Amino acid sequence: MAELKNDRLLRALLRHEVDVTPVWMMRQAGRYLPEYRKIRSRAGSFMDLCMNPELACEVTIQPLRRFPLDAAILFSDILTIPDAMGLGLYFAEGEGPRFHHPIQDEAAVKSLGVPDPEEDLGYVMEAVRTIRRELDGQVPLIGFSGSPWTLATYMVEGGSSKNFSKVKGMMFERPDLMHKLLAKTADAVVLYLNAQIRAGAQAVMIFDTWGGVLSPSDYESFSLAYMERIVRGLVREHEGRRVPVTLFTKGGGQWLEAMAQTGCDALGVDWTTDLADARARVGDRVALQGNIDPAILYASGERIREGVGKVLASYGKGSGHIFNLGHGIHPDVDPGRALALVEAVHELSPAYH
Amino acid sequence: MAELKNDRLLRALLRHEVDVTPVWMMRQAGRYLPEYRKIRSRAGSFMDLCMNPELACEVTIQPLRRFPLDAAILFSDILTIPDAMGLGLYFAEGEGPRFHHPIQDEAAVKSLGVPDPEEDLGYVMEAVRTIRRELDGQVPLIGFSGSPWTLATYMVEGGSSKNFSKVKGMMFERPDLMHKLLAKTADAVVLYLNAQIRAGAQAVMIFDTWGGVLSPSDYESFSLAYMERIVRGLVREHEGRRVPVTLFTKGGGQWLEAMAQTGCDALGVDWTTDLADARARVGDRVALQGNIDPAILYASGERIREGVGKVLASYGKGSGHIFNLGHGIHPDVDPGRALALVEAVHELSPAYH
Repeated sequence: MAELKNDRLLRALLRHEVDVTPVWMMRQAGRYLPEYRKIRSRAGSFMDLCMNPELACEVTIQPLRRFPLDAAILFSDILTIPDAMGLGLYFAEGEGPRFHHPIQDEAAVKSLGVPDPEEDLGYVMEAVRTIRRELDGQVPLIGFSGSPWTLATYMVEGGSSKNFSKVKGMMFERPDLMHKLLAKTADAVVLYLNAQIRAGAQAVMIFDTWGGVLSPSDYESFSLAYMERIVRGLVREHEGRRVPVTLFTKGGGQWLEAMAQTGCDALGVDWTTDLADARARVGDRVALQGNIDPAILYASGERIREGVGKVLASYGKGSGHIFNLGHGIHPDVDPGRALALVEAVHELSPAYH
Repeated sequence: MAELKNDRLLRALLRHEVDVTPVWMMRQAGRYLPEYRKIRSRAGSFMDLCMNPELACEVTIQPLRRFPLDAAILFSDILTIPDAMGLGLYFAEGEGPRFHHPIQDEAAVKSLGVPDPEEDLGYVMEAVRTIRRELDGQVPLIGFSGSPWTLATYMVEGGSSKNFSKVKGMMFERPDLMHKLLAKTADAVVLYLNAQIRAGAQAVMIFDTWGGVLSPSDYESFSLAYMERIVRGLVREHEGRRVPVTLFTKGGGQWLEAMAQTGCDALGVDWTTDLADARARVGDRVALQGNIDPAILYASGERIREGVGKVLASYGKGSGHIFNLGHGIHPDVDPGRALALVEAVHELSPAYH
């Protein structure tokens, strides 16, 4: 493997000193880029794109050609695991992800198998290897997975949900069954992320998109406990470097202390929590990633620069900050605004190091 | 006016002693009740129902016939104010509220008028008077309004939103204009709630459904500041009793301390915050209303009872707790489950008083 030329991300995730705050953007490869839309329309369906390692590599690299980003993130979907479990993922036009075979009873939970990542999700590992080759050490590659709870919401609901009636119904009525489903899913995530690491992912992130719809005690039992189980099962050293793990629960600002105790290296923080508060609460246990409101990208370059300045100031001096949006970039933003954000981070952050 | 027979709600909102924790449910009048759906289909459109004082009274009272609730809440919509401002509210089938004339530039903000509540929103005041007559002192009637920020999201977006691109775009790019819009809206809310109080609302609640999509500093400037302005402008004594004011920001669990300093009497709390923590943080400044996950109503009576017990225990002994869901009741729940919840509160709560 080529030597890593820009290791700011990996250093910051481990709270080592850096010259400049590293920056990347959640969903930096995506619909807001015209060059992505071109590839996407050529690929066929969204899953066809995910399953084509060459094209997945191409869209992963696209944002790096436009913006001086400090990391690449694997282009894929969080629902590859349930798809590999046989749930039959498809995307209904304009309606988001759906499963042909949702998990709604004991028999369905029992019959679920844990996918072999190289066999059943080989296209993801091939994409990781292709991207690493293509990156040629320019920046590190982040691998990722959904959290067990987040995956379970889709698996039980059969798709996106507003009220989470089915998955919460199961959680409240059959907590034993929910725990079985989550345990199996957590096992699958461990194998999946370890395979990504062995294929070349230099850091990994667990997206808990829907942990924030739970009460504090349900969050601890049904989401955080399984993320902790994953953190404990991960390969933490590869290619002679530590592989940092980041946990991100959207809407999880109230639970950062508990999240920091899982053994992870960093926490993603959305924009509803002030980074100064977050840092005071987690102390020096973890690095923090975030957290500008992605809607700032609807404003002018000048306002974006002001917003970046505020976020950098809220984290303050010293290492352990990875600049990011507080959630994924919206598909209707102008790529020029994203450039303004990335440039502002690089220009304004040296004062903090 | 008939003397109030059950004043538990008003007492608890002011942190006076009660025998039993009072309970009501957000959206207790609504689609989950077959008798509501019957009236709704007879009324015509949703707004036709809101604008018909007799029918609005009927649906307000319906849940009280089924459940031993400790309060009634006016059946209406938060968007009556912008409608009265001339924005032209309508409901596109299956798509939620929409405005014919959204507010998207300086001229539109300037030309907005502050509605006269008795003249332009007389149907609401007439509903309040009708309900008070019909309630005959059985339980108190809660009036309500949306918060200025929440109303502004609909007014600027022209309806519901996912990313709040337009309203946040305006907030980031033209904070001066956003403040003008919010100030005008806050003035309208003051007049509107005071008219509800004079018409007979015995407590009022401000629903800040979308404050939780803001960063802490934007929340303080663009949502909380205007709720505080409203609290200061409200009639606080009527019919010889104090009229308690409750603020509820969905997703605002991180900001309870700041909310408690506005001069309000109580805070609504959603289920992502533990009531024990919330109580420790706000001290004895305000009462707390909430906060069971509304999805508990998808579970059995036994699980609902357990859930109620947990929430009562988390608040603990003493006055100042009003039991409620952490958000509105979902339209697909079985009314029998709502009964189980209300009964459990009355049966289990005397031990805490």
